[in-house]
Amino acid sequence: MTDHFFEGAEKLLEIWFDTSETKLTTRNDLRHIPRDAIEEVLNLVNCKVLRFAQSKEVDTYVLSESSAFIWKTHLVLKTCGATTLLAAVQPILELAREYAGLDMVDQIFYSRRKFLRSDLQKGPHSNFENEVAYLDSLFEGGCAYVLGRVNRDCWYLYTLDKPCERKKLDQTLEVIMTDLDPEIMKIFYQDNTTSATEATKKIGIDKIFPNAKIYDYLFEPCGYSMNGLMPDGYYFTIHITPEPEFSYVSFETNAPYSLYNDLIRKVVEMFNPGKFTTTMFGVSAANSLDLQRKYFHYTDYTRTDYQIVCLTDYDLIYGYYKKTLR
Amino acid sequence: MTDHFFEGAEKLLEIWFDTSETKLTTRNDLRHIPRDAIEEVLNLVNCKVLRFAQSKEVDTYVLSESSAFIWKTHLVLKTCGATTLLAAVQPILELAREYAGLDMVDQIFYSRRKFLRSDLQKGPHSNFENEVAYLDSLFEGGCAYVLGRVNRDCWYLYTLDKPCERKKLDQTLEVIMTDLDPEIMKIFYQDNTTSATEATKKIGIDKIFPNAKIYDYLFEPCGYSMNGLMPDGYYFTIHITPEPEFSYVSFETNAPYSLYNDLIRKVVEMFNPGKFTTTMFGVSAANSLDLQRKYFHYTDYTRTDYQIVCLTDYDLIYGYYKKTLR
Repeated sequence: MTDHFFEGAEKLLEIWFDTSETKLTTRNDLRHIPRDAIEEVLNLVNCKVLRFAQSKEVDTYVLSESSAFIWKTHLVLKTCGATTLLAAVQPILELAREYAGLDMVDQIFYSRRKFLRSDLQKGPHSNFENEVAYLDSLFEGGCAYVLGRVNRDCWYLYTLDKPCERKKLDQTLEVIMTDLDPEIMKIFYQDNTTSATEATKKIGIDKIFPNAKIYDYLFEPCGYSMNGLMPDGYYFTIHITPEPEFSYVSFETNAPYSLYNDLIRKVVEMFNPGKFTTTMFGVSAANSLDLQRKYFHYTDYTRTDYQIVCLTDYDLIYGYYKKTLR
Repeated sequence: MTDHFFEGAEKLLEIWFDTSETKLTTRNDLRHIPRDAIEEVLNLVNCKVLRFAQSKEVDTYVLSESSAFIWKTHLVLKTCGATTLLAAVQPILELAREYAGLDMVDQIFYSRRKFLRSDLQKGPHSNFENEVAYLDSLFEGGCAYVLGRVNRDCWYLYTLDKPCERKKLDQTLEVIMTDLDPEIMKIFYQDNTTSATEATKKIGIDKIFPNAKIYDYLFEPCGYSMNGLMPDGYYFTIHITPEPEFSYVSFETNAPYSLYNDLIRKVVEMFNPGKFTTTMFGVSAANSLDLQRKYFHYTDYTRTDYQIVCLTDYDLIYGYYKKTLR
């Protein structure tokens, strides 16, 4: 028995910017921030850039601990392990102001699953209360929510209570899986698979969005990350911690909601987790409640939690599923 | 400026019992528990009985700190101030076994609003984590939820993740009001009103359910409690802490859901709070979501939070409303 442990659960930060000028111009683009300035921020968080790519709409980074995506006026930063993601917030706000004239925050989402080992986290990340206190010191009107069972698995969210000015109404799906099938997880060890591309194909990640460009990475001795770019600024990203003692896989996308039912089913069948959480943002709860009764039932899984939070512009839907004992 | 403070926010405990015998008999009745045994339990919690009454279906107690209701196989205990409600749980389980042959717990609900001054609470009540740890030591399969904004006002719930065997599917509405109209609150001072009955009539509590029998109490120098019994085991209960620095009013009933829209409106107009929380149990969320879009909008109030938790047999709907600034 070793003490080896890795916290797969990511901290996830999404910030939407705006300008106090009357309208957005080409100057207002987060992608004007120099690459070395971004890498400096990532250093603060304790991440390195492993791969970089771009499409017309988005710059994407595969990181030593998860991923970053940068669009014109918003960004997604997702970091796992013992990274200190919140240390990036203030520097990012400054870079956005300096290089992109984006001097206002339109909306922010900070979220994460309950850590397996919060005692190994650093700074405010050791508990949600401290994270909230830190964010409250930077933003006005922040709202902190806990979804799921606080004495078991749960998921935390911090967001601003305000209507968005610039932010397009979009949607995000995250599927967070634990207790994964150890046979499947073997794919993500360099002893069994020689390259990231091979891992991507073996498990079938290349078939989730056949039109995506995939930027993947296989870690030494094990672990896997990928960012996928589709047309129109759509993305998906998968991160895999395969060790059986603390296996963890996350799937995230901003693909359209109409695909979610098939997507969740595909992803869950691919990884065969013992438990999984789904979070969906940006969906009308009334519609989705109706939809979930029809669709969001997965063979072999029992839904033990289902919650809806109606936010100012968004609805958030949280589901928690466990493999049914036979 | 004095240090005078009273925590109006109640701890609310509802327990549904069952027997391991094949079926319930007349023996299985919580009302067989002797009155002095009940008063002993209330002493542990730091409450005294001020008034007692009964109907065919239910025994009701107005307490020095809130209320108790005891039916054949379930009970509701609601206590405010610095009472230690959870100290009652184990003794109640023992009394139910000894005097009513009710040796199993079918379901439990423990809930409360975030305290104004949690530093003044005793024992596990100083924070929800400790309350949950205590309940987890007594029950298996307990689920702890936090509704609302954990960095502002929120509401806590502990319940068991199991389908109910005996428990009838019923419903409960609670309206928790703060920042109340000081002019209205003056009614609940003995300087201004000579009896509980007078207070009940002045504000119009006697008109909420015209067919209710009302057992009310006006505290010295201020404060008010009432229990109301309607036919078929329906009840309502109101508790008022009128001091402007920490004013608090709670309204609770198990009246049928179809009345909720009118009830909430009536109660909110009666007390004119700056903020109020509604919690509704036992309603199908799909129906209610649809209903709320049509009905649950209150003139002069903005709904800042709206959440739905789908439990095993129940849906729980949480709303938080603030008076709209003009």
